[in-house]
Amino acid sequence: MNALDDLIESFSRLPGVGKKSASRIAHFLLRNDRSLCERLSRDLSVLHDRIRPCSVCGSYSEEELCPVCADPGRDRTLLCVVEQPQDVQTIEAVREYHGLFHVLGGVIAPLEGIGPDQLRLSGLLARVNEGGVAEVILATNPTVEGDTTALYIQRILKGLPVKVTRLASGLPVGGDLEYADRLTLARSFRGRTGF
Amino acid sequence: MNALDDLIESFSRLPGVGKKSASRIAHFLLRNDRSLCERLSRDLSVLHDRIRPCSVCGSYSEEELCPVCADPGRDRTLLCVVEQPQDVQTIEAVREYHGLFHVLGGVIAPLEGIGPDQLRLSGLLARVNEGGVAEVILATNPTVEGDTTALYIQRILKGLPVKVTRLASGLPVGGDLEYADRLTLARSFRGRTGF
Repeated sequence: MNALDDLIESFSRLPGVGKKSASRIAHFLLRNDRSLCERLSRDLSVLHDRIRPCSVCGSYSEEELCPVCADPGRDRTLLCVVEQPQDVQTIEAVREYHGLFHVLGGVIAPLEGIGPDQLRLSGLLARVNEGGVAEVILATNPTVEGDTTALYIQRILKGLPVKVTRLASGLPVGGDLEYADRLTLARSFRGRTGF
Repeated sequence: MNALDDLIESFSRLPGVGKKSASRIAHFLLRNDRSLCERLSRDLSVLHDRIRPCSVCGSYSEEELCPVCADPGRDRTLLCVVEQPQDVQTIEAVREYHGLFHVLGGVIAPLEGIGPDQLRLSGLLARVNEGGVAEVILATNPTVEGDTTALYIQRILKGLPVKVTRLASGLPVGGDLEYADRLTLARSFRGRTGF
């Protein structure tokens, strides 16, 4: 049955979907009425045509400007630098941050051949140089690559009239000292805050 | 961003895919080249038109007869009764069974309002009555509903010149007595085999 096997094969290429899950999903779609199947097919067919990078921040957008960049209510003195467009969505979902974003499109990873030139760094420098930005918040992941990238950006912004900060790293809320890894615990000591 | 949110919402309706996985998949599809996206869209759009129940066994098929029913090399004296079409694929993948199948399309589940009338039982009786079938292997799941359904079928086949068997239930190979649940362990005693 090619149509079914093809679909299972396609689904199993998605992240987090193994052969068994792909088969389960395909059979679920066959068993149920065809509307979900058609809807998913339609959503997929228009995705790449509808979504493009925002011309300012590099996040995903359906317009020239993404909803955040286009929103006059955002605090334009704050610029949060993230690795990927989905990080913007993750941060937006928390509703804690009300400034603008800048998406790098990756991190410095020499082993994968990704250097500073492949990231959207000139755009970041241009935005800071334009003026109006008071603080750049480096929100790359707390990984080796994310830390390296944050350090690199901190250096190229040195000398510019802008405050550069990094997201706090430490114990996750609701976590347990006992289960914290050594690096996280060490960092939570170094970053300890006063009452 | 409607196109992206719509896709995430559609994906999150699939079994085993939560909101976070759906978002991860959608971003993966956007980040990568559009070919996988288009391929998945195409596979989904033709699925329901291409696949239909086999007119004999009720399994999924692209033709009037499914590949198993159409295969002259299968042992037509054996009839394996399963709940769903995907059970046929699971059993076929093991390459242990070489007879034919009969798909019930469900199990007797009074709480969900599913009685014997909703299952493909008349087709099963017809196939057995036609003659040629020596053994009916009941391969419904070893659950309360699967056992009930197997018992029901065993009763309606009583008196017909056909041997009725049930798949062995017991300890999974590679399993550990210590982790076996009580019902499985009890059943493995009742079904113990000689050397």
